[in-house]
Amino acid sequence: MKKVAIGIDIGGTNTAIGVVNREGDVLVSDSIATPTHGDVGLYIKALAGAIKELIKSVKLLNEKTEVVGIGIGAPNANYYTGTIEHAPNLSFKGVVNFLDMLKLEFADIKVMAITNDANAAAIGEMIYGGAKGMKNFVVFTLGTGVGSGVVVNGDLVYGHDGFAGECGHMTLVTNGRHCGCGGFGHLEAYCSAPGMKRTAFELLAKYHHTDSLLANTSYNELNSKMIYEAALKGDKIAQEVFALTGQWLGQGLANTVHHLSPEAIFLFGGPLAAGDYILKPTKESMEAHLLPVFRNKIRILPSQLKLGDAAIVGASALVYIEIEKMK
Amino acid sequence: MKKVAIGIDIGGTNTAIGVVNREGDVLVSDSIATPTHGDVGLYIKALAGAIKELIKSVKLLNEKTEVVGIGIGAPNANYYTGTIEHAPNLSFKGVVNFLDMLKLEFADIKVMAITNDANAAAIGEMIYGGAKGMKNFVVFTLGTGVGSGVVVNGDLVYGHDGFAGECGHMTLVTNGRHCGCGGFGHLEAYCSAPGMKRTAFELLAKYHHTDSLLANTSYNELNSKMIYEAALKGDKIAQEVFALTGQWLGQGLANTVHHLSPEAIFLFGGPLAAGDYILKPTKESMEAHLLPVFRNKIRILPSQLKLGDAAIVGASALVYIEIEKMK
Repeated sequence: MKKVAIGIDIGGTNTAIGVVNREGDVLVSDSIATPTHGDVGLYIKALAGAIKELIKSVKLLNEKTEVVGIGIGAPNANYYTGTIEHAPNLSFKGVVNFLDMLKLEFADIKVMAITNDANAAAIGEMIYGGAKGMKNFVVFTLGTGVGSGVVVNGDLVYGHDGFAGECGHMTLVTNGRHCGCGGFGHLEAYCSAPGMKRTAFELLAKYHHTDSLLANTSYNELNSKMIYEAALKGDKIAQEVFALTGQWLGQGLANTVHHLSPEAIFLFGGPLAAGDYILKPTKESMEAHLLPVFRNKIRILPSQLKLGDAAIVGASALVYIEIEKMK
Repeated sequence: MKKVAIGIDIGGTNTAIGVVNREGDVLVSDSIATPTHGDVGLYIKALAGAIKELIKSVKLLNEKTEVVGIGIGAPNANYYTGTIEHAPNLSFKGVVNFLDMLKLEFADIKVMAITNDANAAAIGEMIYGGAKGMKNFVVFTLGTGVGSGVVVNGDLVYGHDGFAGECGHMTLVTNGRHCGCGGFGHLEAYCSAPGMKRTAFELLAKYHHTDSLLANTSYNELNSKMIYEAALKGDKIAQEVFALTGQWLGQGLANTVHHLSPEAIFLFGGPLAAGDYILKPTKESMEAHLLPVFRNKIRILPSQLKLGDAAIVGASALVYIEIEKMK
């Protein structure tokens, strides 16, 4: 039998579904709209239907395929309770018993688990990616926000309530930039993709470089890819955006190291396309902020998961963690 | 048989030794000078001699006493390797195989382990104190420095190299106050006992309150106890020291919560004698810095270990962790 796991990534707009083999390759995938109507029951029915269709299609390709489980990544998902709780970007209000409802649709699939997206990324890194064999590591996902997943002694850290691993909301600057969560000065407000844009606009205001490649783009148009392209062309503002983002991120990663002393910290997301532009200042800043006992020991590595399908691949990896726990 | 554990606390000046019962009470104790001569071999002999004398004295009191193990707390101790590594306040240079050397002196005692002092405090809290039954908690020790011990899923977090749990060195203020470690803006530089003194002197300089009760004491004379006494008498500078210390500490504790979501954070050390003067602003600041999902969930509690003997009591608790692991 060829074993596969189903990975589901619930986003604000779309829900992606993938059938993933043990190596972390997506064999087939599909997506449905994440509804805005707020009716979880209807959504579960549609999702279950799409999953079943996908399983059918993969069995057509190879009838000896066995589905070993379903893993789900969703915002505000609680691994302990199987619920999605007060997710601001989803239309389902309050606390939704998501896992129990989905289980009712799949009597024959024994292994099913849910966690938040950044935790799923960490588990994906551990099962399929660069963290294979590591017992202590942390993943930071840099995107619209900054998520994180923490692994200690080989286990994902959920904390006492299921919500640990929100390192993106550590405070870097007292009373600093407004963060999407309502807080101030959080790492997310500096090191996310929008954070980089905010830095670019601060620097334009500071230097008044009207010849900067970023000076002709509106706030709503600018994105981190454009900043990277400008940096490659030698634009000083764009290059300083990367230097500062790295400084802030390194300061935050050093805080994480002082808590946990991980073997490595993995960085995932769009801004990582810039490679050393982001990695080098991050590493320099982290080292400068570390106690001597931690210096030149902790690796900062780009994630080995592919940007496009990491969310479903990460979610599918949850299945193998559950199987391991059942042993 | 009445079971007891030996706890040893190695400080820069003195080494305290205690025989501790299962309830965490110190039955007998002694101390020897921590040498300045740098000869570990001589020190181990003296320490072993003092331990053996103490065991004899407790067996005189009750001949049915069984020593179940020896636990040691020491600066820069590495639990994984049993070594003390480059401890700046000890005269032993480099990496010292402390545990192996001490084991040679006690062929009949099977359980022996070493960790750093703040980790020992966390283990003491778990075995004898307020964290009994908790699986996820953190201890911050506020003294000359700020140490911490992190417990996740019931296990102390040592990280990949044995040195995790240095939360006192997270950065609160970019390019802020000089920290004893050589870094800048670390929590320790604001929330340790000397940190409170530094805040008092900053505030005197800021307000020029010549009638403050703290205005007639030199930098080297002032201590956190005097600040507390002045605060009790209504001194505005002293009261603001506590308010600011709490603000900084709460910001730091929120960072810790965003990493780990512990059930509780325990605070230990001299400044805690001030009770709500320190606890109240700390709690307010932590709550203000937390994501909504964590608010009004994480308790800040004073340690239940006694200030005077917590170090040896904590060290002795290591023994029960080791026994548990052997099962």
